[in-house]
Amino acid sequence: MGDFRVELGPNAHPAHVGAGALDRLGELARGAGLKPGRAAIVTDAIVAPLYADRAARALAAAGFAPAIVIVAAGEASKSLATLAELYDRFAAAGLDRSSAVFALGGGVVGDLAGFAAATWMRGIAVAQIPTTMLAQVDSALGGKTGINHPAAKNLIGAFHQPRLIVADVATLTTLPDRAFREGLAEVIKYGAIMDAPMITALETAMPAILRRDPATLAAIVERSLRHKAAVVQSDEREGGLRKILNFGHTVGHALEASAGYGGLLHGEAVAIGMGAATALSRAYANLPEADADRLLALIASAGLATRLPVGARGAAFERALKLDKKRAGAGVEFVLIDRLGHALTRTLGFDEIIAALA
Amino acid sequence: MGDFRVELGPNAHPAHVGAGALDRLGELARGAGLKPGRAAIVTDAIVAPLYADRAARALAAAGFAPAIVIVAAGEASKSLATLAELYDRFAAAGLDRSSAVFALGGGVVGDLAGFAAATWMRGIAVAQIPTTMLAQVDSALGGKTGINHPAAKNLIGAFHQPRLIVADVATLTTLPDRAFREGLAEVIKYGAIMDAPMITALETAMPAILRRDPATLAAIVERSLRHKAAVVQSDEREGGLRKILNFGHTVGHALEASAGYGGLLHGEAVAIGMGAATALSRAYANLPEADADRLLALIASAGLATRLPVGARGAAFERALKLDKKRAGAGVEFVLIDRLGHALTRTLGFDEIIAALA
Repeated sequence: MGDFRVELGPNAHPAHVGAGALDRLGELARGAGLKPGRAAIVTDAIVAPLYADRAARALAAAGFAPAIVIVAAGEASKSLATLAELYDRFAAAGLDRSSAVFALGGGVVGDLAGFAAATWMRGIAVAQIPTTMLAQVDSALGGKTGINHPAAKNLIGAFHQPRLIVADVATLTTLPDRAFREGLAEVIKYGAIMDAPMITALETAMPAILRRDPATLAAIVERSLRHKAAVVQSDEREGGLRKILNFGHTVGHALEASAGYGGLLHGEAVAIGMGAATALSRAYANLPEADADRLLALIASAGLATRLPVGARGAAFERALKLDKKRAGAGVEFVLIDRLGHALTRTLGFDEIIAALA
Repeated sequence: MGDFRVELGPNAHPAHVGAGALDRLGELARGAGLKPGRAAIVTDAIVAPLYADRAARALAAAGFAPAIVIVAAGEASKSLATLAELYDRFAAAGLDRSSAVFALGGGVVGDLAGFAAATWMRGIAVAQIPTTMLAQVDSALGGKTGINHPAAKNLIGAFHQPRLIVADVATLTTLPDRAFREGLAEVIKYGAIMDAPMITALETAMPAILRRDPATLAAIVERSLRHKAAVVQSDEREGGLRKILNFGHTVGHALEASAGYGGLLHGEAVAIGMGAATALSRAYANLPEADADRLLALIASAGLATRLPVGARGAAFERALKLDKKRAGAGVEFVLIDRLGHALTRTLGFDEIIAALA
């Protein structure tokens, strides 16, 4: 098992990566300083039948008495209405300042349960137990929590670092194929922006990854999570370095947000965004052609598209791009790479971006 | 005008106390580093007609473009429903990460607007502009924000320090008499727990305070706020010293929470709680009788009761006392004073507390 500490000063906490870690959840929670007693497991209707009882048993064996709170699966649960239900369940379960919330599931559950914990009695402990590739390599770490507002995603939220992360890679074997592959976009991203040897390693390991070999999954999840930790440790509140994690995300978010094009998963949109960022890196950061080709081939080998679908570059997409939170005047602060493993940011005009997508 | 800094490391911020400070709100906001542009003034239906336009004009003169958001006056606005309205208005006003929220009103507005700011885009700037005695000497400083849940007050919330506090004591002249007097309970509390000379000063100044002499009000508000700042600076998250601010509050909260007795304002309940704490301090902390008598007389001179009303010591009150958040096993961690100006905590059994109230 890969264990390490995310060093965030007063918010430092352990992270555990490995197959079967779920059954050790109770002892890991105690080891992280969480206080046995009243607790809640927040999960969704897909994950609950697979893993909630195992998590509850592991916690009970260590003295925790968790209530299991099940929300509907999907982005719609990141709402004030579902948040209100969580508060009601927390009150009914008698959660107090020393209680802990265990977020068992993907990004939606992690964001929602994390925000509920952030705002219950001005902040109680949350443990992130991600069960999807995307959550294990990205969203479980970093403390971003929140829900959506009709006006935009993640408009309501808080920074609230977990007290513990437990990524049981065995849970990745039950993921549908598409949900598994989308997570690989974020894995490849770490190689592109900060770890060139990881690109080579992923090229070699892709067949083992796609057949979900546990040891291989444990290795890439841990390597990804350590990279995320390194970035977040140097920039907890996204003032500077943390921006490089948005490689592929500017175009990706605009694709997700533009109502004219539906049905893309987050990682799928990021993969296309990385394709666009690669073209822009060729044009504006002197990215060598060989590096660009390798990156695009690696993304493709994960079964992910790197080009915008026909018809996706409409007015809604352009509007969404202009609304991007990282906009700077007439342009966008865009993350580029000048070689594999090295990122930089540059303000690009909308016209330059749109042209590169053609 | 009394200006000082609340030294909270990365959360340090200025506080301004004085008559007429409201008209300087714009320059004070810029001086505190708030960015001109989109903003919101959150206030209530009582305060809005008195001060919202003046605040908006002062802000506009400094380049802020504030939307004015008016909520119903009273505790019922500390709800998820009102919070949702604030989010809608923030979205409509286009508040982004660099925008500021100005909380103009009493404790309810400060708690609600502060929490909305704490959770908008994972936290934007809030300026506290308290217009009640209670808010000026207590709740505006310290970063506690939140709303109520049907199960208990302030169950949902966050720590979110203001970037600026502006206490215009001229606004205290429009307060109803009862609302003015209840605030004096918290003023007297600072003397009791940490500033014996302040007790003497208040004994002398009480007539000027009660006729709301601006210079006298400015002096006691600033002295109170500096004491609150000193305590919060040494214990931002209420791990230790900050507990002494709960002098009078254990019994006070139980009185407020017990449904059997309605109609007590917070400060009125705290005054009675200080009466109970004084009796317990005599019994368990060797508080000299002369000190106890002076404190009780000072509270009475502010027009506040120090004894529980007949019938208030029923089962509902005892239940509420046992539910107190600071309970420790079979007792309560109670704040006592062993002399005027010096507090300590001691775990007392429920029976001891109930007996002292008889």
